[in-house]
Amino acid sequence: MNYPGSIQKLIEQLIKLPSIGQKTAERMAFHLLEYGDAELDAFAAALRELKRGTKTCSVCGTTAEKDPCGICSEQKRDRGLLCVVADSRDLRSIESSGSYNGLYHVLGGEIDLISGKRPEQLNINKLLDRLRTGGIREILLALNPTIEGETTVLYLTKAVRERGFPGVRLTRLARGLPAGADIEYADEITLENSVRNRSEIQENIPS
Amino acid sequence: MNYPGSIQKLIEQLIKLPSIGQKTAERMAFHLLEYGDAELDAFAAALRELKRGTKTCSVCGTTAEKDPCGICSEQKRDRGLLCVVADSRDLRSIESSGSYNGLYHVLGGEIDLISGKRPEQLNINKLLDRLRTGGIREILLALNPTIEGETTVLYLTKAVRERGFPGVRLTRLARGLPAGADIEYADEITLENSVRNRSEIQENIPS
Repeated sequence: MNYPGSIQKLIEQLIKLPSIGQKTAERMAFHLLEYGDAELDAFAAALRELKRGTKTCSVCGTTAEKDPCGICSEQKRDRGLLCVVADSRDLRSIESSGSYNGLYHVLGGEIDLISGKRPEQLNINKLLDRLRTGGIREILLALNPTIEGETTVLYLTKAVRERGFPGVRLTRLARGLPAGADIEYADEITLENSVRNRSEIQENIPS
Repeated sequence: MNYPGSIQKLIEQLIKLPSIGQKTAERMAFHLLEYGDAELDAFAAALRELKRGTKTCSVCGTTAEKDPCGICSEQKRDRGLLCVVADSRDLRSIESSGSYNGLYHVLGGEIDLISGKRPEQLNINKLLDRLRTGGIREILLALNPTIEGETTVLYLTKAVRERGFPGVRLTRLARGLPAGADIEYADEITLENSVRNRSEIQENIPS
């Protein structure tokens, strides 16, 4: 038994979204049926306007309101520090942590040979161009601690070193126990990393 | 740090959907950024057309393409059997099971005094009207095995019995172990129900 055509059509659109299955899409469609016409039109307008209000920054590749983006044009940033991220959401997460004040470079994904994401499809040439312009002393490869992220780190390290840039440091995010973790349930790789990268306890208690 | 305005607006729309939090909405918005303009327009159109293509059946209250709905106007249905469900999705689930051939009545929810869903807001008066028209010999109260469903069953039972209809049987869906369940992990109420409602094993094996 099928739903009325207009509900079915919306369900088909909702199922295409990440992590949405048949049941969730049905629940969403019936939730949307309770909206007023104005609310539905507002949602529809937000979809249609999505891309009209965004640009890709020609410097770092992030999705932003203007080109160059707010971060690339912010003068008080440390322009010798470059953080390479997979996508704009990772950029935003690092930005929100308030722990970084350099520039960014958005790759547009990570190398994934299984799903067919090849290095040529990533924003790597522009990264090498930025290095050639000079002034960068450190690249923080802030990629995910996954097979895809590791592959991308290895590829980028090789790509940078093959082209020289001996004065540029290549760094990665620290590995260890996440905040609030339980040692008992931590996986072996995380524990191994947290032991290997153990750090000195700060004993200079202010008197 | 905020996303560009047009992404932020869409995220706000997505968060209003059931079971969608900030992170999932962000993931969806960036997924939608990869759509072509035609794809986004199709999604937007599906939203705007959602209610234009649907009617509420004036007989049973389900959301359908025409009024009366396909089920209410299907002549080969058992018109003496009426299945009361909370919403159109439950109707569809029972219909898909292929085990029911009567008519339906959609309440539009279940009584929930905490969230403020009162009996007056449900499609109950029309249910009593249908009973008065006569010809119905059984009402299957197919409501959820939850506090809200149980409350609604009790309320409906009382409402029907107070108005008479002694010839009308009131039934409910069977309680017991769901298919594929594990007795070890079944909750006490389910186990109690499955023992109390135990049924004879069919021993007439065809020779």
